[in-house]
Order: sequence, then C-alpha cells, then structure tokens
Amino acid sequence: MRRALAAASDAAGQGEVPVGAVVMSAGDVVAVAANAPRATCDPTAHAEMLAIRAAAAALGRDRLDGCDLWVTLEPCAMCAGAIAHARIARLYYGAPDPKGGAVEHGPRFFGQPTCHHRPEVYAGIGERESAGLLRDFFALRR
Amino acid sequence: MRRALAAASDAAGQGEVPVGAVVMSAGDVVAVAANAPRATCDPTAHAEMLAIRAAAAALGRDRLDGCDLWVTLEPCAMCAGAIAHARIARLYYGAPDPKGGAVEHGPRFFGQPTCHHRPEVYAGIGERESAGLLRDFFALRR
Repeated sequence: MRRALAAASDAAGQGEVPVGAVVMSAGDVVAVAANAPRATCDPTAHAEMLAIRAAAAALGRDRLDGCDLWVTLEPCAMCAGAIAHARIARLYYGAPDPKGGAVEHGPRFFGQPTCHHRPEVYAGIGERESAGLLRDFFALRR
Repeated sequence: MRRALAAASDAAGQGEVPVGAVVMSAGDVVAVAANAPRATCDPTAHAEMLAIRAAAAALGRDRLDGCDLWVTLEPCAMCAGAIAHARIARLYYGAPDPKGGAVEHGPRFFGQPTCHHRPEVYAGIGERESAGLLRDFFALRR
C-alpha cells in the first residue's frame, strides 16, 4: 500500500485526484499506476484500470487470476467491474468512498448476482494516509 | 447501430464475444470499436470502453459531453461506470444482458445514488441482430 500511496501523491502533483494502485502477483509488484484521466484525455484512466491493464499486458494474458490489487480508495463501479473481469483474487483498499464507491456503497457490486467473480476484500488499509491526500487535494482547490 | 453491429460481427470473426460500439458527436461518427479482451490481453477492452477511450483521444478531452454511445449489448457495470464518467448524453443499446448487464439488470447502475451522471437510455435497438450474433457465436463454441 506504500507504493500505491506514493503513486496517489504523485497524481496530486499532476493535478489529478490522488488515487494510486498496485497489482501484485506471488509477492512481486507487476504494475503501479496513478489516476490520470486529465493527463491522458481518458475518462476510464482510474488508477485501478491503468494498473490492471498494465499488469495484464506485462503478464501477457487477459485474466489476472491469483493477483492482488492494492488501491488507496474504494473502487467505483467501473473499477469494481474491471476487477471482476480481471479475476483479481484479493482486493485491498484504503479510504471508503461514500460518494462514488461501489464495494461497500451504492451498487455494492461484488454482492450482485450479475457479478461473476468476487475477490476477497480487505478495507481500511492505509485509510488515514489515503483520506489525508484526498482532503488536502480538494482543500487546495476550494 | 449498423456500424456497431458490423464491428460486433468482426469481433466474432476474431474469436471475441461479438459486441460492437460507436460514439457519435453532433451526427458524426467519432469512434468505432469491437470487443477485444483476448486479442489485446486487456480485461477492460470491452467495445464501449475502447470506443469511449478512442473518442476522448480523438476529441482531446476526458469528457464526452453531448456525445451518443451506440452499443449492441446492454453495458456491464464497468462500462456503465465509464459511460457515467465520460458524461455520455444518450445511450442506445441492442440486446438486454440478464447475466452481466448493469443498466436494466443487476446493479441498475444509472439508478444508484452514487451515479453522478445518467444518460438518456434507449434499449432494444437492433436487438434481434445483436442477440443473433451472440447466439451464433456461443452455439459454435459448444
């Protein structure tokens, strides 16, 4: 989660909402990514999406069975859907996101009957640091 | 929808589940894409995602305000989330997807309080052709 938090902090420096993500396979870091929709002109460029895509490319397959995803913020519906499509085994996330989260809020996607793969979910890891990054980012913008 | 159905048919020829999508802006086609997770080693490479990303890149912005998305199948949670992030104005889709759809099935994402943008939704356009492509594709694989 330290690597994901560092990526989130980098994103803030680029003017992007500070969220970072890391994909690990058998204890090795396969991909690290930061939220970047503005810099990339890509509305789908959330940290989780970029990390999943980079990991799949690095491993040369379209499913990340057995891999873990670490992300500093509760994933939204788009990212939760991607986590299920990618067959991520374990999801570790930091701060909850009552406004846009889709794991413990809103659609609670992994509990839906139309969700074909449910990762193990561990919430609240690095929550204070992650929430602090987001709070500082939005405070500067007000 | 004819262009989206043609893209779906091309996807089937590549061994991918036949789904196609088109983004239009002010009556012009901005992007056409077909489902391609296997060919691209990318679990997020649904037709809608690829079309939205290509359209955003073509227009040089991370929001597709005013644009329409035409897709041959009811979007899943990942794609519905991306449609909301991209601020797609109107969503036209073909066949319903009771197993993985997230518009009229499962999370019914656009009706969730955590969904920050709801497109106008028009379902059932080209439904017969779209469902036929999917049926033929899976029949060949059994």
